[in-house]
Amino acid sequence: MKLAVLFGGSSFEHEISIVSAITMQKVFKRTELVNIFVSESREFFLIEKKDMKSKYFSSGDYKKAKKLQLQKGSFVSGSMFGDKKVEFDTLLNLIHGRDGEDGKIASLMEFFSIPYISPRLEASALSYNKLFTKLFAQSIGIKTVPYELLHKNGSREINTSLPVIVKPSRLGSSIGVSIVKDINELDYALDVAFEFDDLVLVEPFMSGIKEYNQAGCYTDKWELSIIEEPHKEEFLDFEKKYMDFSRDGKVTAASVDEAIAVKIQDSFKTVYGNVFKGSIIRCDFFEKDGEIYLNEINPIPGSMANYLFENFEEMVIRLSNNLSYEQNIKIDYAYIHSIQSAKGKA
Amino acid sequence: MKLAVLFGGSSFEHEISIVSAITMQKVFKRTELVNIFVSESREFFLIEKKDMKSKYFSSGDYKKAKKLQLQKGSFVSGSMFGDKKVEFDTLLNLIHGRDGEDGKIASLMEFFSIPYISPRLEASALSYNKLFTKLFAQSIGIKTVPYELLHKNGSREINTSLPVIVKPSRLGSSIGVSIVKDINELDYALDVAFEFDDLVLVEPFMSGIKEYNQAGCYTDKWELSIIEEPHKEEFLDFEKKYMDFSRDGKVTAASVDEAIAVKIQDSFKTVYGNVFKGSIIRCDFFEKDGEIYLNEINPIPGSMANYLFENFEEMVIRLSNNLSYEQNIKIDYAYIHSIQSAKGKA
Repeated sequence: MKLAVLFGGSSFEHEISIVSAITMQKVFKRTELVNIFVSESREFFLIEKKDMKSKYFSSGDYKKAKKLQLQKGSFVSGSMFGDKKVEFDTLLNLIHGRDGEDGKIASLMEFFSIPYISPRLEASALSYNKLFTKLFAQSIGIKTVPYELLHKNGSREINTSLPVIVKPSRLGSSIGVSIVKDINELDYALDVAFEFDDLVLVEPFMSGIKEYNQAGCYTDKWELSIIEEPHKEEFLDFEKKYMDFSRDGKVTAASVDEAIAVKIQDSFKTVYGNVFKGSIIRCDFFEKDGEIYLNEINPIPGSMANYLFENFEEMVIRLSNNLSYEQNIKIDYAYIHSIQSAKGKA
Repeated sequence: MKLAVLFGGSSFEHEISIVSAITMQKVFKRTELVNIFVSESREFFLIEKKDMKSKYFSSGDYKKAKKLQLQKGSFVSGSMFGDKKVEFDTLLNLIHGRDGEDGKIASLMEFFSIPYISPRLEASALSYNKLFTKLFAQSIGIKTVPYELLHKNGSREINTSLPVIVKPSRLGSSIGVSIVKDINELDYALDVAFEFDDLVLVEPFMSGIKEYNQAGCYTDKWELSIIEEPHKEEFLDFEKKYMDFSRDGKVTAASVDEAIAVKIQDSFKTVYGNVFKGSIIRCDFFEKDGEIYLNEINPIPGSMANYLFENFEEMVIRLSNNLSYEQNIKIDYAYIHSIQSAKGKA
């Protein structure tokens, strides 16, 4: 199989997407990778395997790589002798944050009929905005942490008792997220969060909770990862999480009660449902007193959470072989014909 | 001003989009229109003004028109002497149903930095799926008609008392919608609805209600249309609604109580909020016993509901002049540089 890895993007997580993509070079053993970089200004570049090093991008050397255009069914590179198609079977969307997780890349792949692994448009909208994630979870009977909403330019009064977590509604990787323990810190935390989004969620900082990550996908069957208990201090800041994106080793499964494990797995399947078909996601859950709460959905987790799976590569191949496609809509112009007849024009 | 009109698309409403676009030729007087057609197979064609006739499309003649490619900042036509840019100031997304209303076109315009009038990605996801519209409405304190959900391959037992309305979750223009008065009709109605979507909403058919349509947008101020009371039998079937898409005359405002009118206008503004900025939408409300219910959001209404506005053209120009753009994200590779330093590679 030939797998295209799409990375970069106009995103605050552009750089960690590069790290994720570099990690993929080690993770895939028998699959040929075709690396397609999306630059800051959203131009496509075909990156040779030897150039898949962070410095190639940070130095701007990527600008010398072959430029690609997106066309019906493929990416093409222009040449004096016409367009040359970039051949691959499936594209793996590895753009974290904006472009990749907000549904733009999914839209592009869908519109131009390129088979792809990624949350589809609707799933992207639901997971990219933490408010919509809450609404979606409620609608399918999954508990979430309570929250209140603040709007940029709106009131900054909060009703939640301290300590609280302040989060921009639309970003991942802890960017713009703060813990506020003292009311004097609130204003600064909100300034930071509003740098990134007009909508901010304030949640109680729950103590005495355990955090569990569950990744997985549906191929022709459910394929769930081990459950991980992420090691962390209060929460991961961006630089620590960054390192997380370069992981390719295996981790140890969390020692978790069988009953809790089943609840986590069931909750994952309920969230994934039909909505997330075609994607490999990671759900981060909280557990407190035996209850499971969905904290967030990572629609394109760092390095695709490869380290949580027994055999990530084979799963990607199975997923690629089981992608479903949009309904084909046949346009027959029956209505226009019937109107023309009615008007005596046909 | 030069306005590009984008129409057609891979959509069950492809043909009515053509009708909408033809109507625009009459509606715009001082604005130069550039007509871009999206074919069944999602190729772009530049259509000359003289060819903006329904037969040009139904006959397949459009295939002789100039093909366009989407590139950074513009559509271009290839020629022996290089690419030629199609010049316009703003693009009006007039693709009804899939592609246009589901967020794909918004994604394309956003990704390729083309100024456009249309619901943005998130707004599209919220309005395209009637279930999400309900969840969204709840979250902003707007009442909707109660509903239950049925899944393809799931149980077909319903708890709502007859008569009910059966609706596919993701289509507009009454396609696949049925009224069921007798339980024997339910199976057929569900078969029809499941033809179009895996998720179906069943709502009580409310009697003794009035229906009111309110269109509008936010330019540098609120610009709300007159309130229309649509004339209809029980509800508009597709063919009757089709004719609706060719309207360019004015209609008379509904005679509606001042208190109700204010409620409708306020509800419209609440729904539109920040989420629908950049678009001209129509909200269809029910009124019963003085209460207002959101029935649905038409993110790209037939012929843009031009006939409801005092001066549609001038409003479009104002909207075009007040579009806002995505936040610019500067990539400085600071993180990669710092990691390289830490590793002694910099």
